[in-house]
Amino acid sequence: MVKVAIAGASGYTGLELLRLLTIHPEVEITTVTSEKHQGQKVADVFPSFSGFSDLQFTSLTVSIANECDILFLALPHTTAMNQVPDFLEGSCRVVDLSADYRLKSQETFEQWYSFSHQQKETLDKAVYGLPELHRKSIRSAKLVANPGCYPTSVILALAPLVATDWVDLESIIADSKSGVSGAGRKLSINTQFAECNEAVSAYALGTHRHTPEIEQEISALAGREIRVTFSPHLMPMTRGLLSTIYINLTKDMELEELGKHYREFYKNEPFVRILNLGTFANTHYVVSSNFCDIGLQIDSRNRRIIITSAIDNLVKGAAGQAIQNMNIMLGIDEKTALDSPGMFP
Amino acid sequence: MVKVAIAGASGYTGLELLRLLTIHPEVEITTVTSEKHQGQKVADVFPSFSGFSDLQFTSLTVSIANECDILFLALPHTTAMNQVPDFLEGSCRVVDLSADYRLKSQETFEQWYSFSHQQKETLDKAVYGLPELHRKSIRSAKLVANPGCYPTSVILALAPLVATDWVDLESIIADSKSGVSGAGRKLSINTQFAECNEAVSAYALGTHRHTPEIEQEISALAGREIRVTFSPHLMPMTRGLLSTIYINLTKDMELEELGKHYREFYKNEPFVRILNLGTFANTHYVVSSNFCDIGLQIDSRNRRIIITSAIDNLVKGAAGQAIQNMNIMLGIDEKTALDSPGMFP
Amino acid sequence: MVKVAIAGASGYTGLELLRLLTIHPEVEITTVTSEKHQGQKVADVFPSFSGFSDLQFTSLTVSIANECDILFLALPHTTAMNQVPDFLEGSCRVVDLSADYRLKSQETFEQWYSFSHQQKETLDKAVYGLPELHRKSIRSAKLVANPGCYPTSVILALAPLVATDWVDLESIIADSKSGVSGAGRKLSINTQFAECNEAVSAYALGTHRHTPEIEQEISALAGREIRVTFSPHLMPMTRGLLSTIYINLTKDMELEELGKHYREFYKNEPFVRILNLGTFANTHYVVSSNFCDIGLQIDSRNRRIIITSAIDNLVKGAAGQAIQNMNIMLGIDEKTALDSPGMFP
Amino acid sequence: MVKVAIAGASGYTGLELLRLLTIHPEVEITTVTSEKHQGQKVADVFPSFSGFSDLQFTSLTVSIANECDILFLALPHTTAMNQVPDFLEGSCRVVDLSADYRLKSQETFEQWYSFSHQQKETLDKAVYGLPELHRKSIRSAKLVANPGCYPTSVILALAPLVATDWVDLESIIADSKSGVSGAGRKLSINTQFAECNEAVSAYALGTHRHTPEIEQEISALAGREIRVTFSPHLMPMTRGLLSTIYINLTKDMELEELGKHYREFYKNEPFVRILNLGTFANTHYVVSSNFCDIGLQIDSRNRRIIITSAIDNLVKGAAGQAIQNMNIMLGIDEKTALDSPGMFP
Repeated sequence: MVKVAIAGASGYTGLELLRLLTIHPEVEITTVTSEKHQGQKVADVFPSFSGFSDLQFTSLTVSIANECDILFLALPHTTAMNQVPDFLEGSCRVVDLSADYRLKSQETFEQWYSFSHQQKETLDKAVYGLPELHRKSIRSAKLVANPGCYPTSVILALAPLVATDWVDLESIIADSKSGVSGAGRKLSINTQFAECNEAVSAYALGTHRHTPEIEQEISALAGREIRVTFSPHLMPMTRGLLSTIYINLTKDMELEELGKHYREFYKNEPFVRILNLGTFANTHYVVSSNFCDIGLQIDSRNRRIIITSAIDNLVKGAAGQAIQNMNIMLGIDEKTALDSPGMFP
Repeated sequence: MVKVAIAGASGYTGLELLRLLTIHPEVEITTVTSEKHQGQKVADVFPSFSGFSDLQFTSLTVSIANECDILFLALPHTTAMNQVPDFLEGSCRVVDLSADYRLKSQETFEQWYSFSHQQKETLDKAVYGLPELHRKSIRSAKLVANPGCYPTSVILALAPLVATDWVDLESIIADSKSGVSGAGRKLSINTQFAECNEAVSAYALGTHRHTPEIEQEISALAGREIRVTFSPHLMPMTRGLLSTIYINLTKDMELEELGKHYREFYKNEPFVRILNLGTFANTHYVVSSNFCDIGLQIDSRNRRIIITSAIDNLVKGAAGQAIQNMNIMLGIDEKTALDSPGMFP
Repeated sequence: MVKVAIAGASGYTGLELLRLLTIHPEVEITTVTSEKHQGQKVADVFPSFSGFSDLQFTSLTVSIANECDILFLALPHTTAMNQVPDFLEGSCRVVDLSADYRLKSQETFEQWYSFSHQQKETLDKAVYGLPELHRKSIRSAKLVANPGCYPTSVILALAPLVATDWVDLESIIADSKSGVSGAGRKLSINTQFAECNEAVSAYALGTHRHTPEIEQEISALAGREIRVTFSPHLMPMTRGLLSTIYINLTKDMELEELGKHYREFYKNEPFVRILNLGTFANTHYVVSSNFCDIGLQIDSRNRRIIITSAIDNLVKGAAGQAIQNMNIMLGIDEKTALDSPGMFP
Repeated sequence: MVKVAIAGASGYTGLELLRLLTIHPEVEITTVTSEKHQGQKVADVFPSFSGFSDLQFTSLTVSIANECDILFLALPHTTAMNQVPDFLEGSCRVVDLSADYRLKSQETFEQWYSFSHQQKETLDKAVYGLPELHRKSIRSAKLVANPGCYPTSVILALAPLVATDWVDLESIIADSKSGVSGAGRKLSINTQFAECNEAVSAYALGTHRHTPEIEQEISALAGREIRVTFSPHLMPMTRGLLSTIYINLTKDMELEELGKHYREFYKNEPFVRILNLGTFANTHYVVSSNFCDIGLQIDSRNRRIIITSAIDNLVKGAAGQAIQNMNIMLGIDEKTALDSPGMFP
């Protein structure tokens, strides 16, 4: 059995790691930390785990790195950033679900996150954990930076197009719609029920921190710097994330050709599904699963491609993808604990 | 007192007309029709009207046109299209909330709605009922074609820009998010609770019938044919509609300048509010009201304007705007029955 | 114009007072307080009020009592309790929406609220503001204690039965279901969207503080001490409160007779509606309105009456009833600002 | 591998059977029927199954009984009632998720369902499939009548009390709150999103068809005829069912004693969890799982027990329990395919 620890297990991504790892046949969870709930039993705080876990939440210390083979960090950004080098001194490998090691460039961190990243050496070692693009590097990585939810949906939707000469990469617009759980479990007036229920709103237009993450990966694929307009929106639902992505065509093309290209591109990917032509992505079909569903459309009147991409923000957008990365790192079947259909209805 | 009749009063826009007209001090509702509920009392079918209405639903006949000064048609598209000329023979004036008389061109109807419009003469007389653009013509119109919910939010958001030379009108993309009531009250599997609750989905991308309506009005303002990409989405909420609109700048500009231009453009409009700079539109602040809230952003890295525009789809997007049109037609205060803040929370 | 001040105007009941008073033709709002937002404009914090209010939130001081004719206290329990005697020294009359003056007995406060109530004299003067039971005393009251949301729905449902000899008053069980806004606007993990969305839960079974409030009024009607079992539940919706109330019959009776009795009992009440027999209460028909809808059923197999009672917890359950009380105190039409149907859908 | 067929696989309980059986390691699904979707692939109609199922929906014929070892009937009541004897002629065993074989008495069917049940012989053979009460009979049953969702939650909550002499069995009141998926997938105005969203309503008070099902099982446990008052309510959520049950104590007792009794009663049950004392049931902790969570309270002022009982109506209330029954019938581990925690959030 692989020994696994979860730091920050009482947040929503931490809880989702717990839920999915509970049914993972090759994993034993050894440690779960929560500063807020330390000393309490998981099942007392979250009765859904009654009968599944006898663990108590503990406080996070560096020793955690020696108690496990895989350490998941499900902590707020920057909380454990400077501890990661110490964790890596231990025997474990780390999957960090925060943004702390996602960007390659210290300057970009400074520009978008307003802090000075001190761990250049560790940053250089980190692998961006999107298996569809970086599976090989993930396999041997000591530190995997698990992608953000928005970037996962947007990058997967765009990747098949970047290498083609069919589109104008300067024209990318990603309009994303996320469920409220994406904001995490910390108290906030904006995520109080009566504030966000029955409401759709835009936020951080053009300034959201997931923008450079998308740009980094698209630029790497394109071999040159690409910028995107990224617009997040908050939806009155708990889980689910839909991105609608616009990109100008540089030539006329048929939807069938586009569909064929996407199917070919992702033919070996277990968690990317290209929807039947004429069907657009719907978060309802992926909720609770690790799938990214991609729907395609060509607006031929305006020579634009419209891509829709749906994930469960807590699964493929966070905990599920982290476990997919763990499976790859351990050389076990990538689909273990993740091989189930979405919950509909 | 002005005598008012509502054809199709048991649908969602019909019910909203009833609700708002109930508090209109200068209106007496004389007739409400519903084929499904004819013979039943309004208050028996919809207990919210208990104490407010003793009316019974009747069947729609041409004689309705002689029983009222204003006839609201809140019927499914094409249901009453060929009766409208007959209605106009009567003493009443008509506000049609369906799409039947919104487009100027018979060809466009054929292309987008797949039917052949037989009422060219009446079509020529119809005024597109967006008060912010056509108040003067509405005043004397015999027939007002009340705008669709999506076009209302998109056209109001774009109008101030069209006359400027700041933007590339070929680059317009409108990504709209609507509550489920926009689909009407007829039974449909897609609008069953367990299907659309906790789900966000795209539909009719690039092919929605509100596209030519938007294009007609933007083109008229621009003085040349303009095409837009329009993408509707279904949200898990009852009311509210948010459009996020993208348009490329042809020059660098400051957000302050843009805000000033919008405030100036709409300074005399009672139902358009330009949000403080840095605040984006949120449907929560307009629900149950006739307001269209507009939020502005410039993505200077990509030289794009991002406009957010929020309405209640049943009020400013349907019944409220219809009453606003009626008030204008009757020469009474445009805000009558509509002058209240949104319901938050 | 009557001068009105709202203390605690940035909470949900305070905001609802603001919304409803905005459309009250005989009221001028002079002061709104909020410790959290003092110095900010109402319309900047809550854009729904843009165009309706130029007021700034201020801090609450005793001088407020001299700036208004009616002072609404929409503050958390005990916050202003000891200031109320000072407020009453001023020229104003007070409607307190907190629980601070609802109970007649200091002992009951101590027992259920765990504090020692120091204002016996003022407590004696306070009138329990349920117009259907205490209209006459409200008219001349200096201090009205506005009822809680749960008690409003339960007491109105039971009042017609208490004076009869048809039922066993020892058998009362009230099972109530409330929307989340009832918990107020303060931050709480239990009212975060992702916690209470898609969830129904019971809380404070048999121990909720609204229990003695219900018992006080039922006991007063009965002329002897009556105890009730009261069970509150949290519902995944913003507004609305439904109580289902069970009481054993001491004789067989027909539903028609029961219905007739209820209609007779409430025949002069503008805000209580007895639903058609066979129709049960649904919060959807009262949301945004000041109505209490009451549905009746007899379970003759078990000789029990089942009463359903629906209100909007923020209107008839708080702000609307407070304004109804104000109207009564001022001798103006009780329905002013409240005379509109619920918002359906 | 066990061969399994699902009749009525495109309804919500049918889809949930499909979802759970997809991850069942000992099952092969051979046939799925749907009159509405026959000829279509499951994954084309329900994209959540893309990658999991290549099956096509077929029409239901009697031959299905020879194509499988276990036949699940997930059809509307009475649809297949008269075919069941023919199915049982085949090689398969049947789990019927409809109400058709739940009641022992033809008279009770006639009284509550208004039809004359013609299959007395088969009725006599049917076993009521609540494993906690009838595990032994289920093991060898040819026909299992899978319990209704409401009865499952109510019977499990009451069973431990019936054999005691602590309570008055004439005083049982069950107030139940169900998510909308419980109403099934057929079109209905009451389950349209805009009708039931943001609304709580009571229906079928004292007359719901699940009443005799509850009474049958409680009476059997009590050894005499017991009647209950049962009140269903519709909640604005997709899944989840909470029952709050009231029963009068005939003596004073402590909560600790009650808790101990319940824990003892269910100590060997894998899917019933007694919550910590002071914690009440919340549907959020059981959604997507097969658990029934039971919370206990004593209202000592009124000498009443208040039991709260939460299930996922589609899992323990339908498909999950059906699979639990199948596992028992087949002699495999009862928890197979069901051994996972609820999805929170």
